[in-house]
Amino acid sequence: MTIVITGAAGQIGYSLLPMVASGEVFGPNTMVNLHLLEIPQGLAMLEGVKMELLDCAYDTLNNIVCTTDPLVAFKDADVAFLVGGFPRRPGMLRKDLIQINTKIFLSMGQAIEAVASNNIKVLVVANPANTNALVTLKQCTRVPSKNFCAMTRLDYNRASAQVALKLGTSVKNIKNVIIWGNHSASQYPDPTTDGYVEANDGTKTPLSSLLNEDDEWLRNEFLTTVQQRGKAVMEARGKSSALSAANAAADCVRTWLVTGTKPGETVAMAVYNEEGHYGVTKGLMFSFPCECKDGDWVVKTGLNVNEFGQEKIKASEAELLSERDAAMEILNNNGSGSSTKKE
Amino acid sequence: MTIVITGAAGQIGYSLLPMVASGEVFGPNTMVNLHLLEIPQGLAMLEGVKMELLDCAYDTLNNIVCTTDPLVAFKDADVAFLVGGFPRRPGMLRKDLIQINTKIFLSMGQAIEAVASNNIKVLVVANPANTNALVTLKQCTRVPSKNFCAMTRLDYNRASAQVALKLGTSVKNIKNVIIWGNHSASQYPDPTTDGYVEANDGTKTPLSSLLNEDDEWLRNEFLTTVQQRGKAVMEARGKSSALSAANAAADCVRTWLVTGTKPGETVAMAVYNEEGHYGVTKGLMFSFPCECKDGDWVVKTGLNVNEFGQEKIKASEAELLSERDAAMEILNNNGSGSSTKKE
Repeated sequence: MTIVITGAAGQIGYSLLPMVASGEVFGPNTMVNLHLLEIPQGLAMLEGVKMELLDCAYDTLNNIVCTTDPLVAFKDADVAFLVGGFPRRPGMLRKDLIQINTKIFLSMGQAIEAVASNNIKVLVVANPANTNALVTLKQCTRVPSKNFCAMTRLDYNRASAQVALKLGTSVKNIKNVIIWGNHSASQYPDPTTDGYVEANDGTKTPLSSLLNEDDEWLRNEFLTTVQQRGKAVMEARGKSSALSAANAAADCVRTWLVTGTKPGETVAMAVYNEEGHYGVTKGLMFSFPCECKDGDWVVKTGLNVNEFGQEKIKASEAELLSERDAAMEILNNNGSGSSTKKE
Repeated sequence: MTIVITGAAGQIGYSLLPMVASGEVFGPNTMVNLHLLEIPQGLAMLEGVKMELLDCAYDTLNNIVCTTDPLVAFKDADVAFLVGGFPRRPGMLRKDLIQINTKIFLSMGQAIEAVASNNIKVLVVANPANTNALVTLKQCTRVPSKNFCAMTRLDYNRASAQVALKLGTSVKNIKNVIIWGNHSASQYPDPTTDGYVEANDGTKTPLSSLLNEDDEWLRNEFLTTVQQRGKAVMEARGKSSALSAANAAADCVRTWLVTGTKPGETVAMAVYNEEGHYGVTKGLMFSFPCECKDGDWVVKTGLNVNEFGQEKIKASEAELLSERDAAMEILNNNGSGSSTKKE
């Protein structure tokens, strides 16, 4: 199995690589080839990381390729973690962030279209993740749009952990928290529409009955804590939340491609909204509650979202529409003919 | 199960914590309490790491305690990873390094003696690891000396990986490489005394027949590469080899306490040499080929070490004797009454 990790010498890469190489994601019987992509300035550091991966003596690691060439990295790739992007710097306008990342993910998409496996599965971690994923998939005619996902599993894990803390229970008992929308501060983490606590004896108690819906906590402190968690970690550690981001990427791909979800359970994935689920504009990458089976996801439909939730979903949709428009303008100005593939 | 990790906010800790918290070391059915010890300057950062551990939503993580007090950290602890120590800085004399770390590990040992489980298992990762482990165990009358280990698994992994590269085979097929002596540049990585390649069909070929014993490679390039590997990674990455050190710590404890070794196989552990194995002075922490079963190790005896190897073992023993004497002098001057427990 050939796995691409971009931005592999960065902090998230350093936490993600052992999870992928050790069999923790793809299981103890799957040998992996790691194709690690970096920008030229990162290549020397990446060679050091390669030395360490060899020194980990993983049973499941077959081969390591370090490269700066996307056409080498994505050659025959089965899975890609797109971690490398241009981070937002102080004083940087959102428009500039979209512009520089759109160009990066244009080239990722073009390389995937040119050389990857027809059935490559792609997880976009780098921000703005939803729009980066949209830019990437629009370059691809061979690979179905359902093969692309932007990561909201970190938000899902954070939200589930906060609910567990609030209720004084273990996070493994918290199920079906939903993350709606964009992997940004406009996201709507929603424990009460479908969430429940599953006791060790299997008893299920809806979170809506445990967390009063008009509770100040749910609509304010909880939302803010989840939305601003990355910033809070950064302030405490002095570094970005690399470990928990890498862990969420591993969780997302493991659930999606390896284990699936248990019957009745969902996880958060931002996926291509081909069908206009929950009234959200078609053609956006939008985080929904997803069930996974045999390497595919389906959006869980028919849930009743209350008015407060619908407003939050609309707000995140509006942000994603504006990001999409900004990215598409850049693609069109850039003469990317395939940028309108699915419009 | 209560697991102590010292120096938990450092780079090795950041790579080690997910391995311990996720069940990768102790298995998916063992719930762990993490007791994380830091110096006061590291505590704010450690709180950030704790936030991330919560955000990883591990099924196997029960509780996290962050503290600067060894008596809190080691309370009822079952396993300890002693990662925190004072690193050697440019211009620092070896004597000063021994002095400052002896005082640190004196306090670790005193805390273990005071409050840990009677059967705590302790892995020392911080350098000088063998002597730090010796200082620690000498404070403990309740805990048997066989419960302490200094890490040479990283050297073992590095040496096995280099042999695999040389032979163009997978590292999982390389067995019974030995690391003799100190976890320092005086160590003797020895693939040929007991090592073999195990093919996928189970056929075993001695490494002594594949690597000519008087080969320049074996006595020079290989030795130097393994002994200097940490420095080489540091030069390439610009940071220390945190991931591969953490991985080796996880490997060591998993083999020792969870899986054991397969019949006929050994791993490298620096252990308390109560019996004077291979002519090495009793009472040193010395790396030997070890077999593990049911949470205990035994040194594999009766191997024929050639003259070259015996000289290397003597040289590493001499270094360890000198480290021991320096440490014991500090303990005696410090008035540590129990420092002569096993002399």
